[in-house]
Amino acid sequence: MLKNRSIISIADLAEEDINEIFTQADKMLENLNTGQKMNDMSSKILATLFYEPSTRTRLSFESAMERLGGSVISMADSKTSSTSKGETLADTVRIVESYSDIIVIRHPLEGAALLASKFSSKPVINAGDGSGEHPTQTLIDLYTIRRELGSIDGKTITIIGDLKYGRTVHSLLSALSRYNVTVNLVSPESLALPKHVYNEVKGQLNVNTSSSLEKFLADTDILYVTRIQKERFTDKNEYAKLIGSYKITGREAGMIKRGAIIMHPLPRVDEISPDVDNMKTAKYFKQAYYGVPVRMALISMIAGD
Amino acid sequence: MLKNRSIISIADLAEEDINEIFTQADKMLENLNTGQKMNDMSSKILATLFYEPSTRTRLSFESAMERLGGSVISMADSKTSSTSKGETLADTVRIVESYSDIIVIRHPLEGAALLASKFSSKPVINAGDGSGEHPTQTLIDLYTIRRELGSIDGKTITIIGDLKYGRTVHSLLSALSRYNVTVNLVSPESLALPKHVYNEVKGQLNVNTSSSLEKFLADTDILYVTRIQKERFTDKNEYAKLIGSYKITGREAGMIKRGAIIMHPLPRVDEISPDVDNMKTAKYFKQAYYGVPVRMALISMIAGD
Amino acid sequence: MLKNRSIISIADLAEEDINEIFTQADKMLENLNTGQKMNDMSSKILATLFYEPSTRTRLSFESAMERLGGSVISMADSKTSSTSKGETLADTVRIVESYSDIIVIRHPLEGAALLASKFSSKPVINAGDGSGEHPTQTLIDLYTIRRELGSIDGKTITIIGDLKYGRTVHSLLSALSRYNVTVNLVSPESLALPKHVYNEVKGQLNVNTSSSLEKFLADTDILYVTRIQKERFTDKNEYAKLIGSYKITGREAGMIKRGAIIMHPLPRVDEISPDVDNMKTAKYFKQAYYGVPVRMALISMIAGD
Repeated sequence: MLKNRSIISIADLAEEDINEIFTQADKMLENLNTGQKMNDMSSKILATLFYEPSTRTRLSFESAMERLGGSVISMADSKTSSTSKGETLADTVRIVESYSDIIVIRHPLEGAALLASKFSSKPVINAGDGSGEHPTQTLIDLYTIRRELGSIDGKTITIIGDLKYGRTVHSLLSALSRYNVTVNLVSPESLALPKHVYNEVKGQLNVNTSSSLEKFLADTDILYVTRIQKERFTDKNEYAKLIGSYKITGREAGMIKRGAIIMHPLPRVDEISPDVDNMKTAKYFKQAYYGVPVRMALISMIAGD
Repeated sequence: MLKNRSIISIADLAEEDINEIFTQADKMLENLNTGQKMNDMSSKILATLFYEPSTRTRLSFESAMERLGGSVISMADSKTSSTSKGETLADTVRIVESYSDIIVIRHPLEGAALLASKFSSKPVINAGDGSGEHPTQTLIDLYTIRRELGSIDGKTITIIGDLKYGRTVHSLLSALSRYNVTVNLVSPESLALPKHVYNEVKGQLNVNTSSSLEKFLADTDILYVTRIQKERFTDKNEYAKLIGSYKITGREAGMIKRGAIIMHPLPRVDEISPDVDNMKTAKYFKQAYYGVPVRMALISMIAGD
Repeated sequence: MLKNRSIISIADLAEEDINEIFTQADKMLENLNTGQKMNDMSSKILATLFYEPSTRTRLSFESAMERLGGSVISMADSKTSSTSKGETLADTVRIVESYSDIIVIRHPLEGAALLASKFSSKPVINAGDGSGEHPTQTLIDLYTIRRELGSIDGKTITIIGDLKYGRTVHSLLSALSRYNVTVNLVSPESLALPKHVYNEVKGQLNVNTSSSLEKFLADTDILYVTRIQKERFTDKNEYAKLIGSYKITGREAGMIKRGAIIMHPLPRVDEISPDVDNMKTAKYFKQAYYGVPVRMALISMIAGD
C-alpha cells in the first residue's frame, strides 16, 4: 500500500509496489486512450516545488494530476520565491503542505527531497535531487521496458554515455538489480560507472563493460542512451571526439537485435541522430509519453481517496 | 471542419471556417455573459509553450481554456526549460504533445509554429512567430469589426503606425483582402508597408497611402492604431518627433466619422492618449475582451469532442 | 455584504464584515478537514498579478481558489509581462479583468492596488502594495487569534521586531484598535513604530513600549514576531548584535504565559529558533494554514454566485 507514503528513492518501493503501480498505469493508459474523464483527484491539489528548472518533468507531473481531475499549484522558479528572502526548505515545505495534498520537489542538492519529506505531513515525491535520485524516471524506464517488451526478466540492457555523473543510470541499475537481466555498460574511460555503484550491483547483475558499443548491439534488447554533458569536459576537443564515437545513428540502430528498443531519458542533444527518430526501434518519445500514466498511477495511489 | 487542424496562418482558414468560428464565438460570448458553466473541454489539457514573453496572449488562451472547463499546463519562460539544456523545438513539441490535447506556441523565430505543427500529432495554434503571423489576433480583429459594426464588407479601415515591422498589420491586410473594404495606410516614410506586402494586397483591396491621418478621419469606419517601437530608431529625436505626430488624442478621436471605432492590438504605450479611453468610439479594451470568446470557439472546434 | 467589493485596506471592512468572513472561514475549514469537494467557484477564474515575488501569498490564494473548485491564471513575474513593453498598470488591469472574475494583485508601490481597483470592473484584492497594506494577512492574523484563543477582546499582544518598516504590523495595529486589547511594542530604538502610526492607535489601544521583551512575557497572550531585515542596516555589526537580542528561543518561549501563542507572518529567517517549532505554543505554521480558509471565505463572498 502506497497511501500517504513519500517516494524519495526507488529503493523505497518493494517489487509488489512496483507491480501494483504498473497495473494501475496500464489502466490509466487505457483511460487516456479512450479519453475517459477521470475524477480520482478532483478537489485535490498537487504542489510542484522546483528549485531548478525541469520543464519536462514539471509538466509531466502537472499533466498527470490534471488528467486525474485534480488541480495544481506551482513554484517553477526558486528565484521568484520566499527562498530569496532566506527561508529554509523545511519552512517552505511546512507552509506549502497547508496548501496542497501532495508535493513534488526538484532540488539541486542531494538529500533535499528526503529532508522535505521529514518536515511534511503530506506525501512528497522526489523529482530529482542533484546527484541523488529521480525515482519516477526509473519507474518510467522499467514500465517502458515491460510495456514494449512484455517483461524485464531475461533481457539484455546496454547503457551508453555518461555513466559517471548520470543519476538516471545509477537509479536504473539499482532497480534492475531486482530483476534477472544482463547489463552492458559502454562509456569512455573518463565517464565510467563509479566503483561504489559498480560494486553495489555487480553481485546481483550480470555486468559487462566496454568502451565500444558495436560488439553488444546484436545481443541488445534495450539500448539505453544518455546525454554526455559538454560541461564535464575542460578539453573541448576531447568532448567533440567523444560525442562522435558515442552517437547513435541509423547505422547503429540498424545493427541492433531485431525487436529491440532504443530508450533515452531526454532531453537529447546530439547522442541520437534525428534519422533514428522514425525507426520502429526508437521508443524515447513513447518513454516520455509513459511518464503521464505512471505518474497518474503513483499520484492516485499515494494521495487518492 | 477545424477538428484536429493546426492554425499557423490566417491563410489556413477558409471564409466559411472564419464564419463558423464567429458563430461559435457569439455563442461563447453569450455563455460568458450568462455565467453558464461550460464543460466542452473538461478532461482536456491545453499546453502553452512561450519562448518569448507575452503575458496577455498567454493569459487570454489560458482563460479561454479554463472557461471551457479544461486545464492548462504552461511553459511561460523558455529560460527555465529544457531548451536551456540544448533540446530542439521538435523534441520539446514531441514530448509536450504527450502531456496535452492542444498546443499554443509563441516563438521569436518565423516558421517556428509551422515546424512545431509538423512534429506534433496534436493540433498547434500559432500565437506569434517573430515577424511571421499571429492568426488569432487577426481573427479577433475581424470579429471585433463584425461585432461592433455588423459587418466587414463595405467598411473603410485606416491603419496607422508601424506598417513596416508590424506583424499584426500584415496579417490583418491579408485577411481583409478577402472582403470588400477600403484601406487607408498612414505611416512615416521610414515605417511604410513593405513593397511585397503592398503588392500582395493592392489588387484585391482599394488602398490609399499617406503620411498624414487627418484627411482620412471623416471617412473612417475603423481606425486601427499600432505601436511605434522606440527600438526601431537610432535617432531618438526622430522618434520623439514622430510619435507626437502619430498619436491619437481626443482631438483626432473627435474628428472621426460618427459611429466609427478605434482599435489597437495592445499593449499601447503612447499611441493613444488616455483621454480617448472613455469615449464611446474606443473599442481596444473590448477587442482584448473578445479574445476570450474567439479563442474559446477555436479551441473547442479544434480539440473538443 | 462583500459581493463584488474590492478589498484594498483592512479599513474597508466593517466589524460585521470581518465576523461574517470568520464564520465562513470556519465552514471552509470544516470542509477542508472532511475533504468535501466544493463547487462554489466552479467556472470562475481568479487572476494573480504579481509585480514582485511572493510565492507563499500567491500559492495560498491559488490553493484557496482551487479548493473552491475554481481556476487560476497567473502572472507570477512582471519581467515576463507586457509591463516590460511599457504597458501601464491601468491598461494591464483593464485587459486582465476580461479574462477573470476576481483579481489578486501584489505590487512594490503603495497605492497600486487601489489604482487597479479604480480601473477594474471586477473586484480586486490587495495582496500587498509596497509599504502600504496587505489586508488578507491581517484577516489571517485576527482569525488565528480568535481560532486559537477563542476571542480577540481582552487579550494582551506583544509585537516584537521591525515595527518601523513592517507593513504587517501597521495593518494589524489598525485592525486591533477596533478591539479591547493591550498591545506591547518591543523593538530596537532604530526600528520603533513611526510616530504617525503610534498616534493613530494610542487613543484606542492600551499601548506599552520597550526595547526589552522579557518583562512582558508573563502577561502575553499572543507573541507576534516579525522579521528584522538585514537590508535595513548599513552597519552589519549593529544588525548582528540586534538580531541576537530579539531572537525568540526555547528560553523565551518557555517564559511566556501558559496557553499563549507565538505567531509570525513568515517567512522567518533567524527571529525564531527551530527548537521553538515543536512547542505547543508555536502557531506560525498553523497561521499560514489558516490563510487558505480565510481566503476561500473572502473569494467566495466577493466573487461567488
